[in-house]
Amino acid sequence: MAPSAPLAPEDILAFAADLADAARPLALAYFRTPLDIVSKADESPVTVADRAIEAHLRGLIEARFPDHGIFGEEMGVKPGSGPVWVIDPIDGTKSFVTGLPLFGTLIAYLDGETPLVGVIDMPALGERWTGLPGEARFGHAPARTSACQRLSDARFFTTSPEGFSGADEARYRRLIARTALRRFGGDCYAYGLLASGHCDLIAEAGLQPYDMMALVPVIRAAGGVITDWAGADLTLTSDGRVLAAATPELHREALAALRD
Amino acid sequence: MAPSAPLAPEDILAFAADLADAARPLALAYFRTPLDIVSKADESPVTVADRAIEAHLRGLIEARFPDHGIFGEEMGVKPGSGPVWVIDPIDGTKSFVTGLPLFGTLIAYLDGETPLVGVIDMPALGERWTGLPGEARFGHAPARTSACQRLSDARFFTTSPEGFSGADEARYRRLIARTALRRFGGDCYAYGLLASGHCDLIAEAGLQPYDMMALVPVIRAAGGVITDWAGADLTLTSDGRVLAAATPELHREALAALRD
Repeated sequence: MAPSAPLAPEDILAFAADLADAARPLALAYFRTPLDIVSKADESPVTVADRAIEAHLRGLIEARFPDHGIFGEEMGVKPGSGPVWVIDPIDGTKSFVTGLPLFGTLIAYLDGETPLVGVIDMPALGERWTGLPGEARFGHAPARTSACQRLSDARFFTTSPEGFSGADEARYRRLIARTALRRFGGDCYAYGLLASGHCDLIAEAGLQPYDMMALVPVIRAAGGVITDWAGADLTLTSDGRVLAAATPELHREALAALRD
Repeated sequence: MAPSAPLAPEDILAFAADLADAARPLALAYFRTPLDIVSKADESPVTVADRAIEAHLRGLIEARFPDHGIFGEEMGVKPGSGPVWVIDPIDGTKSFVTGLPLFGTLIAYLDGETPLVGVIDMPALGERWTGLPGEARFGHAPARTSACQRLSDARFFTTSPEGFSGADEARYRRLIARTALRRFGGDCYAYGLLASGHCDLIAEAGLQPYDMMALVPVIRAAGGVITDWAGADLTLTSDGRVLAAATPELHREALAALRD
């Protein structure tokens, strides 16, 4: 089969949005559902939802782009001939199993090593952030990071203080001690809030590629900076440490604090 | 003026629900609004929203029940002739200022020392828990805590690990080390999730009476137990430590862990 013709980022995003639309009802069908209704096997609703969503999205991608690669949380890697779709069906497992509507579906399209298009979709909130080069949106409105340039003014988010261990925990503690306020429990939603200017700084560790790739086009196009803790671009082989900031100045100060 | 005739809890709840309805549009008018649009003075949107909501609700209470006491976060105590309304216009200040829809409006009606009626309203989520003796509801549906009886099975919530200091922090750490999973960032929403069986255990410290009173009728009527860390009922003069559990068995084990 001949490889697909090159696609415009707008066309890729339209398809990624269709994928997110398809994921929503599946996620909501299992959210806040008692375990015994979901499965007779000893599986949590989030495991069942994760797998159902990923299987469905993989089918849609394979039908439309049979030569593209796919990398999902549940079913691993399907090699392809260039572009790769990276999917996290349910980001925020602990939110999902405790009834918090902050879980999301993450969809990224990579052109080689570069995440070109990203979708952060919040099924239970009906909210969505999208990013492609030069254009970040919250729903239909443009998304823009805050102008915060200093740690001492920064509203900081991380999903859990339990996400850091060993030397990372010491580095994390040095960083947050210099921020204006800390808020916990965001999962992918925190990155959407950063893209829309509601918080200013996020640091996390231990993330997987499917937790990270979709965030990159959104944060960048909204005016923010997102890298690992050494300041390098995030790729499929990054070490799972993420630092996202509203401005280059804030990112620089945060990087230095993590390094001190 | 003659004191009001005794009211049935159902009538009190209907009025409390009217108060929550009145608070919602005020909260949403300021949520995610840039500072400079809200106030020329150096006030945060949440401060402005807090005060606007409390002033409005106080006016509604005074018009209907001129002899009732009122205790609000922003404007203090109005002494009365028996019943007291306790109001937190925006619970979850950090959520509010970071764009997270997890902030709530808390309304409680106390008959003497006993919280008789409680409303946990989530303006940005359009969700509401209510409680009066024998009846807890999530919207129109009954709310019921989970059957979790053991710490090792418990899904634990607290708003922030920064909420504990000194000996409290050591007690808190002993407790959470024995739980199945920890989730942070709930504010009052966690108590609603507990009432509906989505999480099993909450411990917090440093709460104010207006943070706590509305939670009590909801948790109790849903089948849960809510006390301070010594196992005593929560009152207007409690020390700000809260332990809420889905079942008496789980509450007992958590109390012991906090005491160890």
